[in-house]
Amino acid sequence: MSAVGEGDWALLIVEGRERRKSYVFRVRSKASYTTFAGSLRGSQLVGIPWGSRVELGKGVAYVLKPNLYDLMMHVLPRRSQVIYPKDAGYIASAAGLLPGMRVLEAGAGSGFLTIWLAAHVCPGGAVYTYEVRSDMRELAASNVRAAGLEGCVTIKEGDIRKGAEERELDAAFLDMPDPWEALGPIRPSLKPSAPVVVFTPTVNQVIKLLDALKSIGGYAVQEVSELIKREWEARPEALRPAVRMIGHTGFITVLRALA
Amino acid sequence: MSAVGEGDWALLIVEGRERRKSYVFRVRSKASYTTFAGSLRGSQLVGIPWGSRVELGKGVAYVLKPNLYDLMMHVLPRRSQVIYPKDAGYIASAAGLLPGMRVLEAGAGSGFLTIWLAAHVCPGGAVYTYEVRSDMRELAASNVRAAGLEGCVTIKEGDIRKGAEERELDAAFLDMPDPWEALGPIRPSLKPSAPVVVFTPTVNQVIKLLDALKSIGGYAVQEVSELIKREWEARPEALRPAVRMIGHTGFITVLRALA
Amino acid sequence: MSAVGEGDWALLIVEGRERRKSYVFRVRSKASYTTFAGSLRGSQLVGIPWGSRVELGKGVAYVLKPNLYDLMMHVLPRRSQVIYPKDAGYIASAAGLLPGMRVLEAGAGSGFLTIWLAAHVCPGGAVYTYEVRSDMRELAASNVRAAGLEGCVTIKEGDIRKGAEERELDAAFLDMPDPWEALGPIRPSLKPSAPVVVFTPTVNQVIKLLDALKSIGGYAVQEVSELIKREWEARPEALRPAVRMIGHTGFITVLRALA
Amino acid sequence: MSAVGEGDWALLIVEGRERRKSYVFRVRSKASYTTFAGSLRGSQLVGIPWGSRVELGKGVAYVLKPNLYDLMMHVLPRRSQVIYPKDAGYIASAAGLLPGMRVLEAGAGSGFLTIWLAAHVCPGGAVYTYEVRSDMRELAASNVRAAGLEGCVTIKEGDIRKGAEERELDAAFLDMPDPWEALGPIRPSLKPSAPVVVFTPTVNQVIKLLDALKSIGGYAVQEVSELIKREWEARPEALRPAVRMIGHTGFITVLRALA
Repeated sequence: MSAVGEGDWALLIVEGRERRKSYVFRVRSKASYTTFAGSLRGSQLVGIPWGSRVELGKGVAYVLKPNLYDLMMHVLPRRSQVIYPKDAGYIASAAGLLPGMRVLEAGAGSGFLTIWLAAHVCPGGAVYTYEVRSDMRELAASNVRAAGLEGCVTIKEGDIRKGAEERELDAAFLDMPDPWEALGPIRPSLKPSAPVVVFTPTVNQVIKLLDALKSIGGYAVQEVSELIKREWEARPEALRPAVRMIGHTGFITVLRALA
Repeated sequence: MSAVGEGDWALLIVEGRERRKSYVFRVRSKASYTTFAGSLRGSQLVGIPWGSRVELGKGVAYVLKPNLYDLMMHVLPRRSQVIYPKDAGYIASAAGLLPGMRVLEAGAGSGFLTIWLAAHVCPGGAVYTYEVRSDMRELAASNVRAAGLEGCVTIKEGDIRKGAEERELDAAFLDMPDPWEALGPIRPSLKPSAPVVVFTPTVNQVIKLLDALKSIGGYAVQEVSELIKREWEARPEALRPAVRMIGHTGFITVLRALA
Repeated sequence: MSAVGEGDWALLIVEGRERRKSYVFRVRSKASYTTFAGSLRGSQLVGIPWGSRVELGKGVAYVLKPNLYDLMMHVLPRRSQVIYPKDAGYIASAAGLLPGMRVLEAGAGSGFLTIWLAAHVCPGGAVYTYEVRSDMRELAASNVRAAGLEGCVTIKEGDIRKGAEERELDAAFLDMPDPWEALGPIRPSLKPSAPVVVFTPTVNQVIKLLDALKSIGGYAVQEVSELIKREWEARPEALRPAVRMIGHTGFITVLRALA
Repeated sequence: MSAVGEGDWALLIVEGRERRKSYVFRVRSKASYTTFAGSLRGSQLVGIPWGSRVELGKGVAYVLKPNLYDLMMHVLPRRSQVIYPKDAGYIASAAGLLPGMRVLEAGAGSGFLTIWLAAHVCPGGAVYTYEVRSDMRELAASNVRAAGLEGCVTIKEGDIRKGAEERELDAAFLDMPDPWEALGPIRPSLKPSAPVVVFTPTVNQVIKLLDALKSIGGYAVQEVSELIKREWEARPEALRPAVRMIGHTGFITVLRALA
């Protein structure tokens, strides 16, 4: 569809004199939308081509069709701390994910990492994601469907700390408070050499994980790292890093399953 | 195959008392391999199961089957500055890539970003990558084949600054010294709203790009950012960021094509 | 004085269950003070020893005598972007400041950098700081007096782009939008080898400065850098970098005067 | 002295086509010096004015009188991990140091932090620094003399974990592996509200320190932070952060003594 339709998701990039800000919302012809540079009515949007420019009182708005990134950053519902694209992109590439691979995830949470993993292994591959809470399973399922990736994702009820039913998996991804409880139980589900990527917010968890591995056995440590995303103010006459930034999301530990 | 074979690529994670280092090489029974913690002979490796542990003089080695990440970080040949996984992963996720999408890249370079893009859109999608130098086209083709992704990648001879033949593309990726020369010409190849992600090492290029966009038109700026990867020394009794790190690779500018 | 007196400045470090926050204010027995963990009355503070602990509804407050750092971070008035301690400390040490040195500054601004410079060269040394705006000169003078350093500081009316009257200075510090306009004029005021430290918020200014130096002459470039301060959440059971941080203040360029 | 003399320390900033590097050495007329851009003889240096320019085979050298920063970064001898100017500058400013203050340090180490502390409190103030090792005491004393600050520094034999003899100190600085052992014993030496700044390389030490404080008592936690210095390649036509950087030195914890 080349024109904005009633009920479509829209991404608005609004440019003022010294600022730029993105908004994502559903277009309703009877609604009105407020931005830092002025308001606009839904009726101004319905029917215009995607990629149009709309004048605002104190700036300009570009009306764009949002992609998966925009939806995840702005509107997909979340009921837990989610893994952001900067981390998800690296986690998937650090695991060497390829189409057709079969991977394990726990827990599903709001399904954000699930979506990025599925985007890599789909079609032909599979993400098996375990989640104990039924409300989170429903939310994750709904978000995965919004991304159109439900064909490659199986959301399973169950506590990964009791292991997974699958075998010969190519990789595993743990985003849970106590990953050390899961590492032993999931070991039989993994191919030797399979990467296991663990995401944890605190250094205490990294220490406990590395310490626990000595007694758990069955894994080699490949890397501990963190990714820091620094946004810049995109003004060609006064280019500089943004004053405020997100200083931390979590630590990424990459393990490899042994024989 | 569950055992290390003659000629296989192997990833060795070597752990000493205070260090850990990875090595990737082809296993040859008659060769010998030197690590910081001691040497081992190829004949010790051939025939043992993947994921085995081998004692070294001053440490231990884990013998693992390398994945795409390991091959790209250690052995895929490169004849140019490549885009590393931390950036490639974010670039792909910032563009909202999904299986089946059709995207443009220029230039192919050593094919590293090509591989990550293909890993997302494959199968069903396509990466069309333009490269003026024939030696780079051959190198990129060889690396894409090594990753098993040649079915989704078309490496084309041609100067992207004269535009691309394809139409209705979902995204474009520019890793070239003068991306502002390509933005006008490729505009007709892109769907309205399509993300265009530009990777440039210097702030001068970012300034020139943002400045040029005012006269080129046809695009909205969504974001300028950089990703900083900080590795940590993975010692549970003395956890700390590594003393030496890579401080910079490049700046990522995300644009969106207008109507 | 070992007890809190009416009208004294106080620093309150308030600890709640998961947060910690500092407040600086003048103690007034008739006032009341609100913190995130509950309120307290001024009458609870007057007369208690410095370093006392006061229970709040949802936490605890420590009542401390603020030092120069606390006053500068919280209450010294500012009418311009100021240079923060992380930058000021490095700027002074990068210039090798020692007691007794005589240095130049422009502009005085709110006097924050002036104070740190004076703290190094005092007593016996001198800071000559030029400022065109009379309101800023008054503010800087007032802040320097609050720090007790007025004996070493001379705040001068004048445009540094026309040069300085002093001679044989040990260092110079430029915090102004167009430092390239001042470099030529101040050159005769500096000892050969003297460091000149320039602080600028944007990369455009750094580029323009480095470019201008080629035609201005008279200086060698020693270093361009930036300092990033990352605060951590100080919880021993869940230690992690703070989620929100200041991502940027400015770039520090160190030059050396030639013969 | 305005001319380079035999035996003087010299700072050479050497500029090549794409690089810049600093060297510090003693000038000897019979010696010769090798830089990345070519060699020069000591006889070329003796007698020329400070701030002179010397042509090299593949670049140019600026001959400068080194300041305290240059000497500390390049030539002052060290027999331990030292505290660099970026951290030392912030540590001193975070403690609100002013001329005339009396402060405690442990251990002296190579005397680098001692020097920065003395540069603040001198003259009129005092740094009392405790060190158990006699070889380190001698080294620290020698470095403090090289900086000309010996009048304000007392280097004391003794184990700070048994406390300090001084009373009514304005601040304390701990750069030692087990700072939690010293906090109780030094408490009687500090004025209420005095800042205590602790520098530790690992997160394990930060956790142990914060944990220990609960039972030690007598202190409030003001801040935990780290300073990251990012150097830039100072080329106006291709400005960018340096590819390689120091990723970590240590964590800075600021405490305040209670009543």
